[in-house]
Amino acid sequence: MTESLVFLNGRMVPESQASLRIYDMGIVLGATTTEMTRTFRQRPFRLLDHLGRLYRSLRYMNVDPGLSREEMERVSEELVAHNAGLLRADQELGLIHFVTPGEVKTYAGSAAGQAEPSRPTVCIHTFPLPLHMWAHFFREGVHVVTPSIRHVPPQCVDPKMKNRSRMHWFLADRETRLVDPKATTLLLDLEGNITETSGANFLLVRDGRVLSPTLRNILPGVSRQVVIELCDRLGIAFAERDLQVHDVVNADEAFLSTTPYCMAPCTKINGLTIGDGKPGPVFNRLMAAWSDLAGVDIVAQVLESRAG
Amino acid sequence: MTESLVFLNGRMVPESQASLRIYDMGIVLGATTTEMTRTFRQRPFRLLDHLGRLYRSLRYMNVDPGLSREEMERVSEELVAHNAGLLRADQELGLIHFVTPGEVKTYAGSAAGQAEPSRPTVCIHTFPLPLHMWAHFFREGVHVVTPSIRHVPPQCVDPKMKNRSRMHWFLADRETRLVDPKATTLLLDLEGNITETSGANFLLVRDGRVLSPTLRNILPGVSRQVVIELCDRLGIAFAERDLQVHDVVNADEAFLSTTPYCMAPCTKINGLTIGDGKPGPVFNRLMAAWSDLAGVDIVAQVLESRAG
Amino acid sequence: MTESLVFLNGRMVPESQASLRIYDMGIVLGATTTEMTRTFRQRPFRLLDHLGRLYRSLRYMNVDPGLSREEMERVSEELVAHNAGLLRADQELGLIHFVTPGEVKTYAGSAAGQAEPSRPTVCIHTFPLPLHMWAHFFREGVHVVTPSIRHVPPQCVDPKMKNRSRMHWFLADRETRLVDPKATTLLLDLEGNITETSGANFLLVRDGRVLSPTLRNILPGVSRQVVIELCDRLGIAFAERDLQVHDVVNADEAFLSTTPYCMAPCTKINGLTIGDGKPGPVFNRLMAAWSDLAGVDIVAQVLESRAG
Amino acid sequence: MTESLVFLNGRMVPESQASLRIYDMGIVLGATTTEMTRTFRQRPFRLLDHLGRLYRSLRYMNVDPGLSREEMERVSEELVAHNAGLLRADQELGLIHFVTPGEVKTYAGSAAGQAEPSRPTVCIHTFPLPLHMWAHFFREGVHVVTPSIRHVPPQCVDPKMKNRSRMHWFLADRETRLVDPKATTLLLDLEGNITETSGANFLLVRDGRVLSPTLRNILPGVSRQVVIELCDRLGIAFAERDLQVHDVVNADEAFLSTTPYCMAPCTKINGLTIGDGKPGPVFNRLMAAWSDLAGVDIVAQVLESRAG
Amino acid sequence: MTESLVFLNGRMVPESQASLRIYDMGIVLGATTTEMTRTFRQRPFRLLDHLGRLYRSLRYMNVDPGLSREEMERVSEELVAHNAGLLRADQELGLIHFVTPGEVKTYAGSAAGQAEPSRPTVCIHTFPLPLHMWAHFFREGVHVVTPSIRHVPPQCVDPKMKNRSRMHWFLADRETRLVDPKATTLLLDLEGNITETSGANFLLVRDGRVLSPTLRNILPGVSRQVVIELCDRLGIAFAERDLQVHDVVNADEAFLSTTPYCMAPCTKINGLTIGDGKPGPVFNRLMAAWSDLAGVDIVAQVLESRAG
Amino acid sequence: MTESLVFLNGRMVPESQASLRIYDMGIVLGATTTEMTRTFRQRPFRLLDHLGRLYRSLRYMNVDPGLSREEMERVSEELVAHNAGLLRADQELGLIHFVTPGEVKTYAGSAAGQAEPSRPTVCIHTFPLPLHMWAHFFREGVHVVTPSIRHVPPQCVDPKMKNRSRMHWFLADRETRLVDPKATTLLLDLEGNITETSGANFLLVRDGRVLSPTLRNILPGVSRQVVIELCDRLGIAFAERDLQVHDVVNADEAFLSTTPYCMAPCTKINGLTIGDGKPGPVFNRLMAAWSDLAGVDIVAQVLESRAG
Repeated sequence: MTESLVFLNGRMVPESQASLRIYDMGIVLGATTTEMTRTFRQRPFRLLDHLGRLYRSLRYMNVDPGLSREEMERVSEELVAHNAGLLRADQELGLIHFVTPGEVKTYAGSAAGQAEPSRPTVCIHTFPLPLHMWAHFFREGVHVVTPSIRHVPPQCVDPKMKNRSRMHWFLADRETRLVDPKATTLLLDLEGNITETSGANFLLVRDGRVLSPTLRNILPGVSRQVVIELCDRLGIAFAERDLQVHDVVNADEAFLSTTPYCMAPCTKINGLTIGDGKPGPVFNRLMAAWSDLAGVDIVAQVLESRAG
Repeated sequence: MTESLVFLNGRMVPESQASLRIYDMGIVLGATTTEMTRTFRQRPFRLLDHLGRLYRSLRYMNVDPGLSREEMERVSEELVAHNAGLLRADQELGLIHFVTPGEVKTYAGSAAGQAEPSRPTVCIHTFPLPLHMWAHFFREGVHVVTPSIRHVPPQCVDPKMKNRSRMHWFLADRETRLVDPKATTLLLDLEGNITETSGANFLLVRDGRVLSPTLRNILPGVSRQVVIELCDRLGIAFAERDLQVHDVVNADEAFLSTTPYCMAPCTKINGLTIGDGKPGPVFNRLMAAWSDLAGVDIVAQVLESRAG
Repeated sequence: MTESLVFLNGRMVPESQASLRIYDMGIVLGATTTEMTRTFRQRPFRLLDHLGRLYRSLRYMNVDPGLSREEMERVSEELVAHNAGLLRADQELGLIHFVTPGEVKTYAGSAAGQAEPSRPTVCIHTFPLPLHMWAHFFREGVHVVTPSIRHVPPQCVDPKMKNRSRMHWFLADRETRLVDPKATTLLLDLEGNITETSGANFLLVRDGRVLSPTLRNILPGVSRQVVIELCDRLGIAFAERDLQVHDVVNADEAFLSTTPYCMAPCTKINGLTIGDGKPGPVFNRLMAAWSDLAGVDIVAQVLESRAG
Repeated sequence: MTESLVFLNGRMVPESQASLRIYDMGIVLGATTTEMTRTFRQRPFRLLDHLGRLYRSLRYMNVDPGLSREEMERVSEELVAHNAGLLRADQELGLIHFVTPGEVKTYAGSAAGQAEPSRPTVCIHTFPLPLHMWAHFFREGVHVVTPSIRHVPPQCVDPKMKNRSRMHWFLADRETRLVDPKATTLLLDLEGNITETSGANFLLVRDGRVLSPTLRNILPGVSRQVVIELCDRLGIAFAERDLQVHDVVNADEAFLSTTPYCMAPCTKINGLTIGDGKPGPVFNRLMAAWSDLAGVDIVAQVLESRAG
Repeated sequence: MTESLVFLNGRMVPESQASLRIYDMGIVLGATTTEMTRTFRQRPFRLLDHLGRLYRSLRYMNVDPGLSREEMERVSEELVAHNAGLLRADQELGLIHFVTPGEVKTYAGSAAGQAEPSRPTVCIHTFPLPLHMWAHFFREGVHVVTPSIRHVPPQCVDPKMKNRSRMHWFLADRETRLVDPKATTLLLDLEGNITETSGANFLLVRDGRVLSPTLRNILPGVSRQVVIELCDRLGIAFAERDLQVHDVVNADEAFLSTTPYCMAPCTKINGLTIGDGKPGPVFNRLMAAWSDLAGVDIVAQVLESRAG
Repeated sequence: MTESLVFLNGRMVPESQASLRIYDMGIVLGATTTEMTRTFRQRPFRLLDHLGRLYRSLRYMNVDPGLSREEMERVSEELVAHNAGLLRADQELGLIHFVTPGEVKTYAGSAAGQAEPSRPTVCIHTFPLPLHMWAHFFREGVHVVTPSIRHVPPQCVDPKMKNRSRMHWFLADRETRLVDPKATTLLLDLEGNITETSGANFLLVRDGRVLSPTLRNILPGVSRQVVIELCDRLGIAFAERDLQVHDVVNADEAFLSTTPYCMAPCTKINGLTIGDGKPGPVFNRLMAAWSDLAGVDIVAQVLESRAG
């Protein structure tokens, strides 16, 4: 069989049949929590960290997915094993988990604010990582742009829960593409502090130290946590503080940390070059250490990849 | 044939087959705009107003649904005509429109902030209004509760666009149900002003005048617009201003305006009785005028309805 | 008998014996709501308006004073009648109402957030208005100063409820007196808008119109309501809007409205002269109309008064 | 003699006669600063720390209490010695200090923003700690609830000064009791950060570290300082940062620190269980160390206490 | 003589010699207030309105320019008369007034916060209006862009005073030009409301009404005032309210009002077309009425102008 | 020759001829970045640090001054050498750098938001430090006052860039002088946190530690950096956090760090004495260490100086 499987509500189904009824609260409310894990050598990387965060998000939403974390882990491993079997040896998988509170029982109830969900919807699926699409990140670096739209503050939806009520990202991305069609949105918070991109944490380097926005307004990224561990191992100081665009413009280096490609140098902000516009020495040391950890030369894997 | 139809991406499909693939941006990002219209005597009420707002939202999102407003209207009328034929004569329909930007082309692209949508997803569907579920609104009134979670501010996602990135409503509803399982969430904005409930506009009456929050933080509801027109016809003053909980506690009356049941008296806030705890004279005059307009005794229809 | 009486918890007591036990929540928490009414010709002015607001505040606090509004009115009238009998004919009374939730049952309970009050404390008392102390307001006008301390926002304590948690006024007054020992504090809100003084509403005149801050951040003063009525009678437009210091500096006139002396010209802000530094024509017209309403020449009464 | 004494304005008076005249600014303005100390084995614990903070508050208010800190200490010790003599041996005392700016000289002056206080009011009193009332804190833990009302920000009244303008706590407690009559209010600040409860500091444990809100919005509690010292002694890391409800929901442990019962496990927030819903190992270690420090098994004392 | 004159500190000097010493507070602090007036048929338009606002700004700054408003008017008229004599008949003049507090007496004093200015600097100068540069505004309309930088709030510098501390505009313009080199910056305020462009007020049309941001965050423009008068004359409703980008995207029309070219249609915001992307009927009616008022066909004058 | 030289746009000119044309954007927009360096023994102190910050500011503004940092350094040294030759041996120089984007090409373009600058204006000049004016800082200490005006937030203009859009400082200073004509303005930010004075960083000492506001809202001062280095050398802890007025009132010491006089004790805030009102031991140790570093007894130099 040549089709990937998807775990959906307790069953393995072919990817082509993986869909949600239009009454699902993931569609009706965007009330979905999610995670993305990637493989190295086709084995999931830090899967337990991702599932730990998923269950923290579910606890915050007060949603019981009906599977224990251990069961979720087992199913995830099975799914990766199966779907990886359909890949070329040089490919990797992205692994997505998402959970919604289930379907609205009476549709109009929702309109009246009385939505009573059914059993939660649990979905796990994979896709081949489009490694070739990221080559330009390592060659030229990422251009981040701060649009006028601000990040949703934690007293509305806490970004520490990875969730899919992301209309503000959609609207912000449209603004960002006006500046540069290949740029990435970096949202400011309501006070004008740097937060994160839609898929990555943002970090900068000043005087040899890695600086991060505080956790108030950002996802506590699993990849960011890897960076913290690698900094510790390499003797690089890591600190959190409120950062503004001025800090980025005058940083020695800046980079993103994220599941799909681990890290990427960030070389421009709002059209201004950061540092000398090239991946910096701290980035390179961290990336090399990460490649060691993963057992894969991450940059080479991307630069040598081809479209699937 | 006894199954309702759903309009989905250009085709009429049986309701049981109406689902979205898990790559749809409505699921991945909650980047969905939506409308809900209801029927009176099984004919849509103010459909053009709802479609007008839908197309304003699409313009704001910069999404072209691929159908003109006129085509959308025609399809909606057809759908209502067909599905109403499956109802008892005393039933009414809710009519939902929703549009998403379509599917993510490369899934992981989304994680990298580079989501490029395909053709937008357009869905129109209906459901029988659960009129009997609202009887207690007319008998006892609605109890609104202001939880600690605040409404998303317009510099993040403008609530003037009806959209489905509604995680904050889901989280807030959980808090509200701790106070009273039957209560309705009334969100405050970041400055502590009254905004709206998840499915209705909030209005109060003081010294014979109907007062509404300003449009800064709320949906410009079609039903709210009907209230404005009816106020004008009945010689009742209508004004917008920032309102706080203190205003509600000390209002003469308060009520909700919303598509499914038009209006409902709001008789309690945070456990405190508003006015004398009964539907007030201004509410009653407006509701009577609306019934005239609709050609249906709206309250009687609800009170006499039975579960479908 | 020559001593004033005080109504305290159902009994009339001599003023010298009017005190609260140190366990009263008025002392422990400042959780007190209050009103001040004055007399003209020794009869209370707008007593019903003040009692109406008192009962709105009690409803907001969810405190039942144990007396109906009608009983409170009757007792107040009795008290004024008795205590006015001790005055010279040219004197007037101030009449204070205040209500606290009563005493803490177990003191340390309060420290643990479990304060359970006993029966509410209800107190009504009077004092001779120190009319002579206000002569300089009519001769020179009031100097308002905006200190660095900001008004408590309505999402903490709504200033529409007249209450005695007023530490911010105490601290702000200290700052104000550094500028001018005779100046009056005019607090800004968190956004820098003009709000009110500790005892009066603030109003200004521009192009013949009286402008007031919006009701979001201020007490809806009974005297301010009188000004609105007088404006209506005199054909002077009255409007509410957000006002800043710049508006005051460039106003044609500014004035306070307040129970004790009804109105006072405000002729300086932060050391800058407003208008020509004299009571303006709109102030004078309104004051004359108020004197008509009260049956007393209010300014003359103050200017001719002598210390009691 | 069987009645406790109260120190009031320079004199020792029987508790039953301890009251303030209704013109005291503690009643009129809530302009009171206060402290609460408790005894262990009927001797005051950390009295000097409490008096140090009292005098810092007085300096901030610019009020001179007329007694030096040393005199205040001596009187406090005397009072405790006398009043403890009236207790059973297994009882403890709470010791309250409060200071107000004194009485308003001319009542109506206050209404005009010209309040000139007389000599400050200084009061010191005691009460038997109701130890038995806290048993459920140690058995079940505290349920904290975040109501919609927000903490007063430091640019209005700085919570670093313990003060009695606490109407917002009174209003917030009413909301909290709607969720759970035994719950404790945990206020958020205007940005949605965790602050404190009305009588305690809030702390959580994550990955073995004790985390506290920053000092921006909270009382720098004497008991919190004890926790810091005990953490230092036990080799437990302690750090300050902005914390949100999401952090609490996903903490390993949470607890309160406060004078009356030193510490209490916090096992629920907004109806969600924290950790495993039981006092955690860090709490237990700290509590044991505190008992050592105090020479009293604090938990046992509470669990074995009986109503006085 | 062929050189324009400049009025500088009491003397008429040739334009080529009009400069400020580097110790002027206009250079050192940007502490400058300014006005710009234009001519029609080479006569100043609404000069008194501009001077009125200039003197209000000076009052707010507490700076006495040393000339009365009448003297300033007379000098301005003389200057225009002289400099207009150097123009072609089809040209118009811009007339600039600016006043600074003068020179710092001791330079380093400024660094220590002790700047004591000398006599204020008063400058009046003119320049030929570059009418031809604005043709594209009338042909294609203005494209406004909302950058991430926000307008300075009135509690820092009140924008009701036209002033030259405009670094935020400089920084914002750089962001705007990334989107479109010909676009105009439209700043949002800290809450995400529309304010103004660097040189114009922003207005929109919805349902036949002209809507403006409130005066809280914007210059009360003299041209905006002309629009209000023309609306009144033409029976077009004019109202102020908080407006957001969503309102602009969905407006029927939008336009700028400003001294140099009076009004210009605004046809795009953030790359989205407003209305049908053409000057709308309300704009056209107002512009025609303005041309009547000015005695000049304003649009034709621009479209037919040629570079000077 | 006895006149100081000024470097202006590539040329050395006599000070009396150093002026900017009225079309310079430094005058029109206040769009100027600046630095101030001082000499010790007539040699520039930390010139490279100041130039480093100047070039960071220019990068943020995207302005290329046309000189490399090395050239700027060389010219600065030359200028100091020349101008110091005109001084008495006991005098020191202040050295100012400022850069503007140049002149507006078409004046009215600016009014239309289309300002296109010419070549940047680069100016370097000096002045004799008025050492004698600061004697009272060392004798009595500085009195800081927090006026009602707030510091411009970094999402408008980032104070990490030293710039000359300083109208808010001008307005705030006027308020401050009402309290005390010799006082220095200490601005609060929008949340009420301490920021900085117009020419100095603010620091306080508590429990032996030096505490500073965070870098969010303040200039990262070169002198502040010297303090950090000296603290490190002397074993004094240095930490950043949000500080409020309450922290200052109750600090053990407070002081300013600034280029002209390095440090000054701050002994009063809003009329309240800080610590014992005298320079404290931490200040004295730091100042002594700084004198060592500079090779000049800084305090003695000031106290023994005479007017130039």
